[in-house]
Amino acid sequence: MADVTQEFPYFKYSVEGVETGADPVIREMPLTVYVNGEELVTLLCSPDRTDELAAGFLWSESVVDSRDEIGKIVLDEAKGAVWIDIARDPEFIKNLMFKRLITSGCGKGTTFYNVVDSLSSRPVESTVVLRPEQVLRLMAEFQTTSELYKSTHGVHSAALCDADSITVFREDIGRHNAVDKVLGYCLMNGVDPAGRVLVTSGRVSSEVLLKAAKKNIPVLMSRTSPTDLSIRLAEQLNVTLICFVRGGKMTVYAHNERIVV
Amino acid sequence: MADVTQEFPYFKYSVEGVETGADPVIREMPLTVYVNGEELVTLLCSPDRTDELAAGFLWSESVVDSRDEIGKIVLDEAKGAVWIDIARDPEFIKNLMFKRLITSGCGKGTTFYNVVDSLSSRPVESTVVLRPEQVLRLMAEFQTTSELYKSTHGVHSAALCDADSITVFREDIGRHNAVDKVLGYCLMNGVDPAGRVLVTSGRVSSEVLLKAAKKNIPVLMSRTSPTDLSIRLAEQLNVTLICFVRGGKMTVYAHNERIVV
Repeated sequence: MADVTQEFPYFKYSVEGVETGADPVIREMPLTVYVNGEELVTLLCSPDRTDELAAGFLWSESVVDSRDEIGKIVLDEAKGAVWIDIARDPEFIKNLMFKRLITSGCGKGTTFYNVVDSLSSRPVESTVVLRPEQVLRLMAEFQTTSELYKSTHGVHSAALCDADSITVFREDIGRHNAVDKVLGYCLMNGVDPAGRVLVTSGRVSSEVLLKAAKKNIPVLMSRTSPTDLSIRLAEQLNVTLICFVRGGKMTVYAHNERIVV
Repeated sequence: MADVTQEFPYFKYSVEGVETGADPVIREMPLTVYVNGEELVTLLCSPDRTDELAAGFLWSESVVDSRDEIGKIVLDEAKGAVWIDIARDPEFIKNLMFKRLITSGCGKGTTFYNVVDSLSSRPVESTVVLRPEQVLRLMAEFQTTSELYKSTHGVHSAALCDADSITVFREDIGRHNAVDKVLGYCLMNGVDPAGRVLVTSGRVSSEVLLKAAKKNIPVLMSRTSPTDLSIRLAEQLNVTLICFVRGGKMTVYAHNERIVV
């Protein structure tokens, strides 16, 4: 595993004059994902757990549906490449390469629409309920873990939890990547995220909400804010959306029936 | 222009009990960009200045090289679509649609590599120099403008400046979108960004650095941190990279010869 930071020299200017030195800087690497030998996508990410990132990305994007479909994973972090063999028929792979035509760009918009369509009739099913104290306790553990991982330089983090503690915690310079690493760990280690709680350090956008809903995760929480689209989707897809979890408070924007006082 | 925020009802939980009400929430919309009638990309963005976003995106991605190549722009924010006619030959458009095959995904990695290759022999040329006080003053104006725009809910912002003041300021839920809106304004209004200063509210990643370098912008500054890749590219492409501009201080990671005390 490569270091997540590297020291770089700097010049600091202030009224007191110029100071030179070196500080740790967050690393960023391009990771090209090859599926059955074909280039699928290049992600910009932190050089850490990139095999989980690749697996999680494929699972999030429904390129694979289960662990069984993933064969050999060959990772070459120095080259910024990961090769994954998947057990899908050649026609599917061909369509996948074609499908990139309409899912290109940062927004991955057409994927988004398709996902909404395909999910609109399948809201998350779960009987999970949480007490406010449990929500606060999970966020406190999340914050403590973030500090342990020295993520003070502003990388994003994500965690999957049960009602009482964190199951897996991951970080990345990309908000979506951190979530995909969590999902990749789950896929590769036989952990079913369904019925659990997803915590993200960043804004809850439609994309993160959809990643949760697709895996039947009934509760999504964040220290920070949602977008209107994430609230609408949470409402529609039966996800409890909890934001601004800090200072002993939380704001629930959708499906607060899962919060029991 | 649509509202950037919209009120949503909430339930707030704390030791004091449950409180209901409504708070403004940042809006997020999918914007599908059609070039000469063909769907190119869908961006997730704030519903504000989306025509500039589309134009800036096309310019950033080198789909167009000048204002002259842009014909009619038809915007339908309710539908989340913008149609742009560009004066490029049909072969170019065909290649563009094909090129998406290798530029898909959030990282836009292959574009990235291509860009690095194409730029490696063309570092930014500029004789611009700045005094530390000018850097601090520009950031102070940037922060004040952000507050004026009520961007207290955590949207990203970007601005293009000359040595003494802000030329154009834009914001978006997406860090890259905010920069593309600034560039789109420049393209559509005959403002040449070359030789100016780009300010971003967010982390300086390789992608933002490349957007600046491609437009011959010699100085990039941020209140927050860089990645190692952005420092390496700044070094290579002759961009002065100034981070952590706050509290009367700044940290310069590349080409500090443009900062004169």
